[in-house]
Amino acid sequence: MTTRQKLRIGLFGYGVVGQGLHDVLNSSCGFKADIVRICVKDPLKKRRIPMEHFTFNRNDILNDDSINLVVELINDPDAAYEIVTGAMKRGKHVVSANKTMIANHFRELVEMQTKYNVSFLYEASAGASIPIIRNLEEYYDNELLHSLRGILNGSTNYILTKMHNENIPFSQALNEAIELGYAEKDPSLDIDGFDAKFKLCIITCHAYGLFLEPEEVFHYGIRNISKFDIRYAKEKGFKIKLVPYVGKTNDNTITSYVLPRFISSDKYLYNVDYEYNGIITEAAFADKQFFSGKGAGGHATGSAVLSDISALSYGYRYEYKKYLQGTVTNYTRDFRIEIYLRYKNENDRELFNFEEISEQYHSNTCNYVIGVVNLSRLYELRHKLPDMDVFIINTGRKDIN
Amino acid sequence: MTTRQKLRIGLFGYGVVGQGLHDVLNSSCGFKADIVRICVKDPLKKRRIPMEHFTFNRNDILNDDSINLVVELINDPDAAYEIVTGAMKRGKHVVSANKTMIANHFRELVEMQTKYNVSFLYEASAGASIPIIRNLEEYYDNELLHSLRGILNGSTNYILTKMHNENIPFSQALNEAIELGYAEKDPSLDIDGFDAKFKLCIITCHAYGLFLEPEEVFHYGIRNISKFDIRYAKEKGFKIKLVPYVGKTNDNTITSYVLPRFISSDKYLYNVDYEYNGIITEAAFADKQFFSGKGAGGHATGSAVLSDISALSYGYRYEYKKYLQGTVTNYTRDFRIEIYLRYKNENDRELFNFEEISEQYHSNTCNYVIGVVNLSRLYELRHKLPDMDVFIINTGRKDIN
Repeated sequence: MTTRQKLRIGLFGYGVVGQGLHDVLNSSCGFKADIVRICVKDPLKKRRIPMEHFTFNRNDILNDDSINLVVELINDPDAAYEIVTGAMKRGKHVVSANKTMIANHFRELVEMQTKYNVSFLYEASAGASIPIIRNLEEYYDNELLHSLRGILNGSTNYILTKMHNENIPFSQALNEAIELGYAEKDPSLDIDGFDAKFKLCIITCHAYGLFLEPEEVFHYGIRNISKFDIRYAKEKGFKIKLVPYVGKTNDNTITSYVLPRFISSDKYLYNVDYEYNGIITEAAFADKQFFSGKGAGGHATGSAVLSDISALSYGYRYEYKKYLQGTVTNYTRDFRIEIYLRYKNENDRELFNFEEISEQYHSNTCNYVIGVVNLSRLYELRHKLPDMDVFIINTGRKDIN
Repeated sequence: MTTRQKLRIGLFGYGVVGQGLHDVLNSSCGFKADIVRICVKDPLKKRRIPMEHFTFNRNDILNDDSINLVVELINDPDAAYEIVTGAMKRGKHVVSANKTMIANHFRELVEMQTKYNVSFLYEASAGASIPIIRNLEEYYDNELLHSLRGILNGSTNYILTKMHNENIPFSQALNEAIELGYAEKDPSLDIDGFDAKFKLCIITCHAYGLFLEPEEVFHYGIRNISKFDIRYAKEKGFKIKLVPYVGKTNDNTITSYVLPRFISSDKYLYNVDYEYNGIITEAAFADKQFFSGKGAGGHATGSAVLSDISALSYGYRYEYKKYLQGTVTNYTRDFRIEIYLRYKNENDRELFNFEEISEQYHSNTCNYVIGVVNLSRLYELRHKLPDMDVFIINTGRKDIN
């Protein structure tokens, strides 16, 4: 059996996830890793444990040679980048849940772990409590993976569930999510789809071996959703979910995007409500598989972080097998996709260059059209879209490519 | 990065799963492990590849020193035991999908891999395409796991789905399952719940660290299900599924059983139909998680076997962490459970020693009662039950213990 390394932890951040990890660690019978010190930003904030555990100077952890693992659970991606790279340069292992930071420096961070011979694990950054990276690394190693899609953002799923179930407007559902701590006070990262996209980029590397720049990937959130869209979905028996997608277009090419999507009641994702996440993989031989678990909350995320810490104590590292195999080499946005577009002005609609149209609806208050557009056109419009009086939903009908 | 071991495979069995593995292996870009030789029983059976690949003498594989991995995919558990132990004694790694054999010799096989310093992997034996063992080993290592339940037998789930959807009797649904290759010609292993129980015993070791003798665990299948039971379930908005369960009764004690169970439409398992399997874990911090995937078929099972082969090439071994931690030490059947009992004779019903009764129904053709019994009483009746004109379903209402 493998020998277990004794871990002495320097923790950065003591917010919802940091405290959740602390709880989980204290209740774990598996092992007792010591949290040697906790670095936080605000010296005035009241803490639930004695102040002697805290420091406000990151070097108290980074320069402490007795600490061999840094667990990074702060919000600020720039500070997180400095902490994580600083730790690796000093030969410390790192566990992080910071999707923004990881997605934006992904290749560099992966190369650093080889260079400095440390392990860098980040399961909680992608699926919160769903062990998707580990499963892609270990289990789908040799699977011909057609596609992966799912619900990766608990905040927007909470908002969409509330709107669907209680018929309340977006702004009210958003405020409730903020009050419950499911969404940040500046919710753009969640509701504009950035968070889902960063997670998708991390997953894409472990699914297909490509390090994508987030800027390359089209994302669209739920900021402009209206009660009309929800009512339309309900009448048709659908729920609307924010669904990131990545999939093959041929043997060596993939595409990916983040879009709201209609989900019918016979689909697994239909029952993934509130702060839950769910991921569907489709593969040549294993066929369709589904994973679901909590996508937000300190304890759920904390338990994912603890699983990384535990794996680390056994010497675990991601192997980046798909990257080393190099089967997938290309990324494309030339991909046809059927959407529902709710709009007000014909000028707006014309911008989308619909290739086919199957349904049209016009009324005094708004119009919608269902038809096929090219993902590359959506990408060209990406900076305009948030300010347009439109809403886009992937119909999710069978692959039309 | 870990160095990869070159694997030379001796394959036992070339039925549905063996051929499925062969297909998956041929399509895999991940690596090319060589199947050196295939041992089969019947020299007269027509094969889809040239006969030079086959042997009928197991020693041609076991005594071939160039073969370092034996993949065992035959039906006969006694022959499988001889092959697997023979291979380990000769220093060969082993991958097996034989739940009957593994569950009945579990502790001995696990001890042998340490003694002979080989790796023994068997993911496909428990959840077919669902990587449940790997997740329990790697991911739930430090989780306080309350319980695990699910659908682990594709044949019975196929039969129950057909009965529910098409209103056909058990015997007809069974025959269809046999014709499609989802059930064996002697279907007792599936329909009496043995298969689900063997899988549950394997999972229990990786979930809680106990090696249970299958004989200790109560199981009950679907052989005696009637159209009355299906109609009753439908009227109440339920489906009936065969659901193995294992869970904690206190910090160091678990219980387990296999019973049909009512599933309401808001539950994940409700949509796990036909040959699909699904597993739900409930844990202190990660909360509820759900995994689903195909539970039968050559390609789905073959891809699980290939994942084991791939893991083996990276030197992977199960760590049996829960067993080594030794937190759970006791097994109990003293557990109160609410059941629906359909019966004909009052004498039969009295055998169950109901502690509480909440509903009773009587008619000319049959009767049912809903109430609380003790699992230990069901266990005492286990040899009588198959011949009694009764059917038992776990109501699945909230834990009453």
